[in-house]
Amino acid sequence: MLERADQLRVVLVGTRNPLNIGAAARAMSNFGFLHLRVVHPYDVAFREARSAVGAAPLLANAEEFKSVADAVADCTLVVGTTAVRHRELQHPLRRLEYGARLIRNQLARARVALLFGTEKTGLSNDDLSHCHWLMRIPTRDQHISMNLGQAVAVCLYELVRDARAAKTSREKLDKRATAGEVERISTVLLEALHLSGYINPIAVTSTEERVRRMVRRLNLSSKDAELWLGMLRQMLWKIREPGSPAP
Amino acid sequence: MLERADQLRVVLVGTRNPLNIGAAARAMSNFGFLHLRVVHPYDVAFREARSAVGAAPLLANAEEFKSVADAVADCTLVVGTTAVRHRELQHPLRRLEYGARLIRNQLARARVALLFGTEKTGLSNDDLSHCHWLMRIPTRDQHISMNLGQAVAVCLYELVRDARAAKTSREKLDKRATAGEVERISTVLLEALHLSGYINPIAVTSTEERVRRMVRRLNLSSKDAELWLGMLRQMLWKIREPGSPAP
Repeated sequence: MLERADQLRVVLVGTRNPLNIGAAARAMSNFGFLHLRVVHPYDVAFREARSAVGAAPLLANAEEFKSVADAVADCTLVVGTTAVRHRELQHPLRRLEYGARLIRNQLARARVALLFGTEKTGLSNDDLSHCHWLMRIPTRDQHISMNLGQAVAVCLYELVRDARAAKTSREKLDKRATAGEVERISTVLLEALHLSGYINPIAVTSTEERVRRMVRRLNLSSKDAELWLGMLRQMLWKIREPGSPAP
Repeated sequence: MLERADQLRVVLVGTRNPLNIGAAARAMSNFGFLHLRVVHPYDVAFREARSAVGAAPLLANAEEFKSVADAVADCTLVVGTTAVRHRELQHPLRRLEYGARLIRNQLARARVALLFGTEKTGLSNDDLSHCHWLMRIPTRDQHISMNLGQAVAVCLYELVRDARAAKTSREKLDKRATAGEVERISTVLLEALHLSGYINPIAVTSTEERVRRMVRRLNLSSKDAELWLGMLRQMLWKIREPGSPAP
């Protein structure tokens, strides 16, 4: 989670759909941003959202304001979100990838407000006049407008995203099979291939080499190597003793 | 948009809420992934979702399958999403940041399926047995479970996310004010300050220097410099000619 997530204020301006308020709150809770502010929401919508499942404590603690000015008064950076690209914007417009970096830097020092407008019209020019700059999610040109809850989720995800996690897998890999285990598999497989007539006596060496390389390319884990060895041994036994019942 | 976005198949397994199917489809359309597959959805839910606004063509073209096996049969990589971390998973579990990178690489070569389970229980063990590995969104431990539509949005955003965009601003900055424009502002402001008695005659030089530095720190754009100059000139005029009507 982001270290100074407590410095962010997510501000929903004029949201009319309780499902959207609830969805925004749920994404906030998922990503560890717990301070919601709402500006003149449709009253019924806000009451309904407050009674929604999942994000109850976050919604119960949400602060309600009469104006954008009041809602952002204690923040040193105010960022508006917008889907618009071509209309004459009076503010710098930054892509989410870059804007989130600026917000993260600021959160280390001071409080930041992130504004989301209504589903239908977004933030008004008056709302925007309280913003230092605007941020947009890189949606495709043919369908730029996102659902409010999804837009909140994507913006907050970018804030908590860990760039280092993209570079290293951080996963505990299963222990790889040793060369000895791999060679045992090769040996049993080759014997089975010999006995079953797969290997042409004239090309024995080249075929054996090919099979050995192929087994190594499987890059088996130690556990899987054991399984494979068991299966091949069983097949080899059946090839050797076709009439016998299974041991 | 991602170059090979047409290679991805988003597969919703057993989704029962039409709003969630609609939301998933909308996020797909936002981020340019147009191929939706659904596996035994609740019939009514799927019909209702198809009639939802916004993502109509994408939903109309959605393919319906009876089993996960059928839905992923033509894909070379199958990735399941999960919120679970601590249960005994039989698959490698990768964070979204890293997993999305692997998916992007694979999309350049072949078709990839990305599976999402039901809202309540996620993907079943049987569903998971069709996956090569699993991916999780980095939510906080106290609230790991995301809304389906939001999870789809966040995963697809990470796929189209442009790492280079995080490093450079790519924004056209407004032309900055020239030193001459800034100096004209300083001059008019200083004259107004003198005339209004703000500047103590004993400390003229140091005060003037302070004001000049302050004006330069504003880092005004050329347009804004013009506005400021106009406002200051007007104030200066009023200070000089207090009795006159505005010009």
